[in-house]
Amino acid sequence: MTEVLVKDLFSDQQFAEDETVVLHGWVKTARGSKRVGFIELSDGSTLKHAQIVMASDLEGFEEFKKLPLSTTIKVTGTVVYTPTAKQPLEIHATAIEVEGASDNDYPLQKKKHTYEYLRTIAHLRPRTDTFYSVFRIRSLAAFAIHQYLQEHGFTYVNTPIITSSDSEGAGEMFRVTTLDMNNLPKTADGKVDDHEDFFKKETNLTVSGQLPVEAFALALRNVYTFGPTFRAEDSHTQRHASEFWMIEPEMAFADLHDIIVTSEALLKSVVNYLLEHAKDELEFLNSSVDEHLLERLHQTVDEKFAQITYTEAIEELKRAPVKFDVPVYWGLDLQAEHERYLCEQVYKRPTFITDYPKEIKAFYMRDNEDGKTVAAVDMLVPEIGELVGGSQREERQAQLAKKIQDYKLPPEEYAWYLELRKYGETVHSGFGIGFERLLMYVTGMENIRDVIPYPRTPGNADF
Amino acid sequence: MTEVLVKDLFSDQQFAEDETVVLHGWVKTARGSKRVGFIELSDGSTLKHAQIVMASDLEGFEEFKKLPLSTTIKVTGTVVYTPTAKQPLEIHATAIEVEGASDNDYPLQKKKHTYEYLRTIAHLRPRTDTFYSVFRIRSLAAFAIHQYLQEHGFTYVNTPIITSSDSEGAGEMFRVTTLDMNNLPKTADGKVDDHEDFFKKETNLTVSGQLPVEAFALALRNVYTFGPTFRAEDSHTQRHASEFWMIEPEMAFADLHDIIVTSEALLKSVVNYLLEHAKDELEFLNSSVDEHLLERLHQTVDEKFAQITYTEAIEELKRAPVKFDVPVYWGLDLQAEHERYLCEQVYKRPTFITDYPKEIKAFYMRDNEDGKTVAAVDMLVPEIGELVGGSQREERQAQLAKKIQDYKLPPEEYAWYLELRKYGETVHSGFGIGFERLLMYVTGMENIRDVIPYPRTPGNADF
Repeated sequence: MTEVLVKDLFSDQQFAEDETVVLHGWVKTARGSKRVGFIELSDGSTLKHAQIVMASDLEGFEEFKKLPLSTTIKVTGTVVYTPTAKQPLEIHATAIEVEGASDNDYPLQKKKHTYEYLRTIAHLRPRTDTFYSVFRIRSLAAFAIHQYLQEHGFTYVNTPIITSSDSEGAGEMFRVTTLDMNNLPKTADGKVDDHEDFFKKETNLTVSGQLPVEAFALALRNVYTFGPTFRAEDSHTQRHASEFWMIEPEMAFADLHDIIVTSEALLKSVVNYLLEHAKDELEFLNSSVDEHLLERLHQTVDEKFAQITYTEAIEELKRAPVKFDVPVYWGLDLQAEHERYLCEQVYKRPTFITDYPKEIKAFYMRDNEDGKTVAAVDMLVPEIGELVGGSQREERQAQLAKKIQDYKLPPEEYAWYLELRKYGETVHSGFGIGFERLLMYVTGMENIRDVIPYPRTPGNADF
Repeated sequence: MTEVLVKDLFSDQQFAEDETVVLHGWVKTARGSKRVGFIELSDGSTLKHAQIVMASDLEGFEEFKKLPLSTTIKVTGTVVYTPTAKQPLEIHATAIEVEGASDNDYPLQKKKHTYEYLRTIAHLRPRTDTFYSVFRIRSLAAFAIHQYLQEHGFTYVNTPIITSSDSEGAGEMFRVTTLDMNNLPKTADGKVDDHEDFFKKETNLTVSGQLPVEAFALALRNVYTFGPTFRAEDSHTQRHASEFWMIEPEMAFADLHDIIVTSEALLKSVVNYLLEHAKDELEFLNSSVDEHLLERLHQTVDEKFAQITYTEAIEELKRAPVKFDVPVYWGLDLQAEHERYLCEQVYKRPTFITDYPKEIKAFYMRDNEDGKTVAAVDMLVPEIGELVGGSQREERQAQLAKKIQDYKLPPEEYAWYLELRKYGETVHSGFGIGFERLLMYVTGMENIRDVIPYPRTPGNADF
């Protein structure tokens, strides 16, 4: 009698006909007639279910064919190959034991539920095939990213979550505090005394690890962050969450061209990894969520991405036989409608846009020689829009100091950042990938709330 | 002319004698006499430095042999093998170009600095050999953990950072808010109106992902978290930080024995990975930080860990020919002095302690049959004390409901957690590893602040 996993039944592992095996798992469906009963058993080891067949002389037959969904059972049975059926084999039960009861009001009955409803039971939705698939892909994609970067000499750096600075010089942030809100310490002028707070000053949740990780690129060459970031924006779109994960690779001795090459290679590598390791899950999502998913993923790895400048993009958009909600002019911060038109209608594949007007980009991006644009790049992908944003960083001490001044940033907060240039100006570049946007791209899910285990959005922080 | 990395010079890659190569990097030292000059060049690709030799007829010779430390340079030169010297080869420079200046007051001059001072320049300390090594090991250890768990069928789950519940039922937490602290909305009774906050209730930073990840174990079987966690304790010890990373594996259909086996295998696998992939860094730390480091790591992988019950541990401590600061009795929450005595003096290796008194452990741990203890386990390791804490979870709905009541926890907050049992009671177990404690163990660093890129402790949230 061998203890086996459901995934073993579908692997190359060979079982002898009539070999006795033992399985532990959860009842996905239970049904039967007078003479025969069936249980589909899941044990979490694979998306697939094992087919358990019960003959009417099995002890407990009448009870087992009506077992509540999600009952935990132990099955002892013999392997019977079924070359003409959908599944390669069945388990003919010789004994079944109920190890843990489940109530009859289990909310995940066979009928189809809306994603909205399933979000209200985020603790149970991973038990559905859809969310099982999404969260397996989330895990595999995370690992594929680590693996690609580690194999290419990148060092993983955990930049801080609690921060006293604001990387972007913009963005609404969450305050972190241990002050008693009902009894706040005050300064002489009646303001909250931040010096009494836990860190002896005001602190917030990070919006990006880029600035702190630049310090590591200037010592360890190729580095990356992969961790949670936060935006306290009152956004209620399908693409924004208050808490999300970002991957931020940063490379010393690398210019804009290098990060374009690296981000394309990284994305292709992740998709290839999923095509190999998440075959069942992608096929399931392709059949039930997005019928173009597999086609899009194969195109992603097969075709070279397009690349144009922002100025060319604006010309393309002006020529477009389409009326956009937001009119197009040079200097416009491109909206999702423009981005999607370019990559879906014009180039029909992931598209890099380079050299944006400096007015719409962050202070740390390197000025181009034209005096109007910066060495920035976005990668736009079909269905999503912007997936990656990056730039060559301003490595020249004098130019960076001037930009900190021009952007009216508090110089004392950026003193350490300037010092990175004071002690060795080095060409360096980096980019950020929104992990959940990547997951929407590789799963076909249309709402960011459905690729996050317990999503946080305005008004929602349950579980 | 081939562009190469410093690490290529020390790899198996073969260069022809007199082959011309190009390197970009930072000046680690520069010196010279009238006739010859030397630059040690680092480029972040390896802990090692390239030896650059300059003859007096090199254009710029006088400038280059006095280059400020951390100047960014491009070196063109020829490969000359040096079979009798420490390094296998030198680069005889034919041209050097300064790509980025560095100021003469660079704080990391050759003299040895204290760790305390280096923490004040956390943006520059990765440029030292010590912190280069520590942060390379941090990255490699993180990857080794992901790789081991993924290869063993575990799914990575990103549990939320912002939470409205308190996993441990204890612990001081950081509040997360967007309320204007200088103009707080109040309810009729004069208290802060949490309903006006971003998430329409009070939210905090997570202290553990365990409870939310249990929901995923009950769908995906083997799962783990690996992310930041927070404690707002006013601790000023060498082992406590306010922000630290934890790995929390959770396994369905697994009991206490299974997590003991898994945590031992995981730790050994990480150490083996480092012995293979961080050879230079470990040797450097062994020679400069902790002369017993390599010996300890080899023992860790070679010996089976010890295992005793809490009751046996208390007997052992009572027999000890040592006076402890905190007296020993059955029911005592073991202190670092007791933990270290057991694993350093008695068992001389990592030691599991099982079956703790239920009064000193969390509500979710499974009651043993004796009515006094719970199915809990800690792994103690030399130099550190507790490295891993885990337990079999109370999977029986009625018993769990009673414990929630006994511990006076708000039942509405734990309703979803109880529901995980309502719909399929399943034996399951899990454990948590403090990532920074693991890093102290594998680097020999004695202060947790020195294994975190930008440490957060009471009063400190710089950068």
